Amino acid sequence: MTCWARYRSGDGSEGFGVLDDAGIAEYRGDMFGSPRPTGTTLARGEIKLRSPCAPSKIIALWNNFHALAEKLGKRVPDHALYLIKPATSIIGHLEPIRRPAAYQGKIAFEGELGIVIGRRCSGAGLADAADAIFGYTCVNDVTAADVLNENTDFAQWCRSKGYDTFCCVGPVIATGFNWSRARVTTKLDGVERQNYPLSDMIFPPEHLVSQISHDMTLLPGDVIACGTSLGVGSIRDGATVEVQIDGIGSLVNTLAPR
Amino acid sequence: MTCWARYRSGDGSEGFGVLDDAGIAEYRGDMFGSPRPTGTTLARGEIKLRSPCAPSKIIALWNNFHALAEKLGKRVPDHALYLIKPATSIIGHLEPIRRPAAYQGKIAFEGELGIVIGRRCSGAGLADAADAIFGYTCVNDVTAADVLNENTDFAQWCRSKGYDTFCCVGPVIATGFNWSRARVTTKLDGVERQNYPLSDMIFPPEHLVSQISHDMTLLPGDVIACGTSLGVGSIRDGATVEVQIDGIGSLVNTLAPR
Repeated sequence: MTCWARYRSGDGSEGFGVLDDAGIAEYRGDMFGSPRPTGTTLARGEIKLRSPCAPSKIIALWNNFHALAEKLGKRVPDHALYLIKPATSIIGHLEPIRRPAAYQGKIAFEGELGIVIGRRCSGAGLADAADAIFGYTCVNDVTAADVLNENTDFAQWCRSKGYDTFCCVGPVIATGFNWSRARVTTKLDGVERQNYPLSDMIFPPEHLVSQISHDMTLLPGDVIACGTSLGVGSIRDGATVEVQIDGIGSLVNTLAPR
Repeated sequence: MTCWARYRSGDGSEGFGVLDDAGIAEYRGDMFGSPRPTGTTLARGEIKLRSPCAPSKIIALWNNFHALAEKLGKRVPDHALYLIKPATSIIGHLEPIRRPAAYQGKIAFEGELGIVIGRRCSGAGLADAADAIFGYTCVNDVTAADVLNENTDFAQWCRSKGYDTFCCVGPVIATGFNWSRARVTTKLDGVERQNYPLSDMIFPPEHLVSQISHDMTLLPGDVIACGTSLGVGSIRDGATVEVQIDGIGSLVNTLAPR
């Protein structure tokens, strides 16, 4: 398993590479192509992580876990149900979530597994879909909950989930990650609020990639957020959310205090 | 008024410039910055138009015309209601709309005014929002109508409107265009199906840009499709849709025959 990250170093320069306990081994070229190591390693203290990729789009699943579907009394869908979050909503590990200026309402966290696409993918069967997956990351799919159903004629999925900073992604992209035995754990100010098995997914990753690739072309760096399960809650201003998946890492973001 | 277009020439090279009856005057640099004319003009017959911009996101309005709201019995909203179409859905003038492979259902056209953003824009007041508008284009916001309400728990706005080729944009971006006296006319195989005044908009362009910029940062080239009014209908395979706005031009796309 390899953990890819993007970073900004003290002098403001940006790069990417492979992260381990020692630091980050710098690479050049295309992360999703044939990147080359430069031989330079930067210590953890010298860098700040950015979101590990810059997606052209984020596809966020709704109702993709049996346990949550059952709790909400929703039918198991026949096809992946999703909305699109804009690229401008992305932030990385330790970057602050910002409350929209005029919004006083509830802001919800959702800890999720994120799929990162590694190659252009259209109309893919399951095998090609699996090959198009570069790796996996953690996602906190943030929602301005009171905006979602503010208008009774039209559920505002894209708006309530599309604000700048409302898509936390990171800390890394783990390749060779086996999601089938992993769990997603979400802590709010250190208290566990979500702890669910990825094996409970209705549409597992290669099915999601295959289905969605029949709707729209997926591009390298695009992220599919696999949906959440039980335990979603709201974030007070100043509170910290940690989404942790064993084998990927811990994604930590604070809702900036007012 | 200046009409900007992007093109592909016979040798496969791509460029952009100012289009008039004589042809296209080639420019270099950033269309939204300070592009420089090269002095070369290509004849209309030498080029094929592409979509006039490459948005990072397309924001598509719902329920933004009084006449349609009244017909559908919907309340006039307090805030712009929208979904996001992915960048991969874009095609330009004369490029074919393609039916999704496994989809046999109704495909609908919606003729619309499109706003093209010219500068990065976040939290903008009305004056800054007006300044952030580079120009206007025609949009055909295509929908796989049977997908939209296929699942009774979740309206699939992004999926039904997000398929590759489902966002026709063009033929040009007109700067200095006065939308307030213009009409949108949509013809299906030459027969007029929509003809509505833009003055009937609930949220006019600078209000849309201002409101949406408080939700998410708008980037140069981003497109806001202002929503449609009366006369939406379905496109048979092989049929041609023409969205025409005086002062911008005529956007023509055919649903590819099976």
